[in-house]
Amino acid sequence: MSGPERDPLEERQTDSVEILKGHFLHAFRDTVELPDGSHATREFIVHPGAVMVVGLLDDGRLLMERQYRYPMHRVMTEFPAGKLDPGEDSLACAQRELWEETGYRAAEWARAGTLHPVISYSTEHIDIWFARGLTAGKRQLDAEEFLEVFTATPDEVLAWCQDGTITDSKTLIGMLWLQNWQAGRWPLSWQPAVP
Amino acid sequence: MSGPERDPLEERQTDSVEILKGHFLHAFRDTVELPDGSHATREFIVHPGAVMVVGLLDDGRLLMERQYRYPMHRVMTEFPAGKLDPGEDSLACAQRELWEETGYRAAEWARAGTLHPVISYSTEHIDIWFARGLTAGKRQLDAEEFLEVFTATPDEVLAWCQDGTITDSKTLIGMLWLQNWQAGRWPLSWQPAVP
Repeated sequence: MSGPERDPLEERQTDSVEILKGHFLHAFRDTVELPDGSHATREFIVHPGAVMVVGLLDDGRLLMERQYRYPMHRVMTEFPAGKLDPGEDSLACAQRELWEETGYRAAEWARAGTLHPVISYSTEHIDIWFARGLTAGKRQLDAEEFLEVFTATPDEVLAWCQDGTITDSKTLIGMLWLQNWQAGRWPLSWQPAVP
Repeated sequence: MSGPERDPLEERQTDSVEILKGHFLHAFRDTVELPDGSHATREFIVHPGAVMVVGLLDDGRLLMERQYRYPMHRVMTEFPAGKLDPGEDSLACAQRELWEETGYRAAEWARAGTLHPVISYSTEHIDIWFARGLTAGKRQLDAEEFLEVFTATPDEVLAWCQDGTITDSKTLIGMLWLQNWQAGRWPLSWQPAVP
């Protein structure tokens, strides 16, 4: 079993048990063989993955949301985001979530990268999309979805990242990308919206 | 019940049920009253909180780790981090985790801010600490903890953030802070290590 490519830090699954099948959370406890041959358990959430959209308005402002996040017990300031539907393409999801949550459609899209919010106990990944050429329309919130849409300048959003107003990890990382893209360091490849 | 300070987006708990008490994961399903008076359920992980350490060596290099992260099924490149013990002070935890995982002690510390990795389904927060005046010693890994320590320049780490080598959210946010601190935009307040 020990091929030459095995990383010396690798952990190998020897068992897997579903420990929670909730309405939303789905968790497993796997038994793994550690690098020294001993065994340990790893508990984690299985997540379908998600997208985030950094929406750039023509006047340079950013499209933001205020949303009550129950585990935080407060309203959070964030970029629009949402979970992938089963089998859904990442860009299609980004377009759908932007439209549903904010009512905006974008002419051009660029995928900046992927982030993993919590590598120790969830499989979740979030694809980071930039959107420009925005046109406003009517939003289509899901039932039970309450959120406010507003716009802010990049300088305002950066100040909120510094002063602790914004602590949401995906939004902070959106600003890392925005800063480096605007500085000409991290280029983006733009593509038209898909139908 | 509806005081003047209530945010119109607020959700109010009406019930709470423990749905998972694992070895590591602890989850609840709360019933909440939504802004329109209807009810919904919110499932989330309760987490003790954590710290991350951006360690600055005297030669300008950064202290990094390679660690196998089972939910990702791969080795991840990260800043050192770890969970708070019950009742533990954040800086004491940062000093302990840095020492245990890397063997380094730091003369000066600065708290940059806090991030929330996954606001939709975990209470976890991560305090972001910067450390300088580093001196190497012998690390004290927990049993079942396997990780490699190495150093890299900020430019190398930034390139890994851009090219997808680094996707860990806390590490990406550490680099957002490092870039803005080094550019003189986000100052840090340094304090001596606590005994």
